[in-house]
Amino acid sequence: MKILNPDTVTAPASRYAQAVVHAAGAERMVISGQLGLRPDGSLENGLEAQMERAWTNVFALMSAGGFEREHLLRATIYVTLPGQVALYREVRDRMLGGHRCANTYLEISALAAPEFLVEIEAEAVRE
Amino acid sequence: MKILNPDTVTAPASRYAQAVVHAAGAERMVISGQLGLRPDGSLENGLEAQMERAWTNVFALMSAGGFEREHLLRATIYVTLPGQVALYREVRDRMLGGHRCANTYLEISALAAPEFLVEIEAEAVRE
Amino acid sequence: MKILNPDTVTAPASRYAQAVVHAAGAERMVISGQLGLRPDGSLENGLEAQMERAWTNVFALMSAGGFEREHLLRATIYVTLPGQVALYREVRDRMLGGHRCANTYLEISALAAPEFLVEIEAEAVRE
Repeated sequence: MKILNPDTVTAPASRYAQAVVHAAGAERMVISGQLGLRPDGSLENGLEAQMERAWTNVFALMSAGGFEREHLLRATIYVTLPGQVALYREVRDRMLGGHRCANTYLEISALAAPEFLVEIEAEAVRE
Repeated sequence: MKILNPDTVTAPASRYAQAVVHAAGAERMVISGQLGLRPDGSLENGLEAQMERAWTNVFALMSAGGFEREHLLRATIYVTLPGQVALYREVRDRMLGGHRCANTYLEISALAAPEFLVEIEAEAVRE
Repeated sequence: MKILNPDTVTAPASRYAQAVVHAAGAERMVISGQLGLRPDGSLENGLEAQMERAWTNVFALMSAGGFEREHLLRATIYVTLPGQVALYREVRDRMLGGHRCANTYLEISALAAPEFLVEIEAEAVRE
């Protein structure tokens, strides 16, 4: 997995990769959008806690398939509240512990229910 | 194609997979967002009929590439009307006939034109 | 990379592919959502210029990884202004120079900051 941040494109505004290349021989995991739900199905309170839990869920799924955090290739983030990108970056950097992946941040009308404030959809590859 | 629903993450609220892993040697199909358009370009009436048609279009494209329904890996669903997730699940389960794939449901401001109520973007792999 | 536009699904409304199939032995590039930012980090003025710049950024990243324009597999476009699909198609066709890829067009509440009008997220494969 090779990270690209060439100087022909503006530097990432935060800790992510503008692009990531992976080779043909990669096992790939595709992950459904993860919400701020605990394993018992209850919902975390507030955006920050929901963000942390959604990341925890992404990593729990990766772990269940034998993937490590460093195998995370891409994450697309959907947030229903306006102006939350700074919080998103802070939580992501804390949860990713220095790993960088491709990232797209979007503000969306709603998720599957009004109480869901964030959803993280992701994929991982293991070469 | 291996489906993962580990107990470290809350069980899916409906018939889908929290994550799917596929091996390196997979042929992959990437499908443009499908609308509720019939083959003659006319639009189905109402959300449910548009949902059914969008799925029919996804399967028609898969079939054209030699893929079966069971090769569907992931679908991302964009709906412009609020509160339609129960209908979405019912239609999806009917159209997928027991197959489960990775799923992300999103409520979106609009699609390419105001009369489009749903779009389904998907990918498939054949190992 | 094999483009599919079968007559079982309505013809694409513009120059794109309803589906694209690629073989197992493909090197793959996943690209973060690209905005209308110049290499120095300043923002282009207006939607059309931001669209052109976002495409330029996608191609610059592909080029940095050794990919050509013809390796573009899929693009998902997020626009914050209503009713801009005709402009989108015109700019895309100009920027893609005859190449067709899988495409999904979405109107979204907002991107990472209110001045960003368009974001293009994409992937490429090289067989």
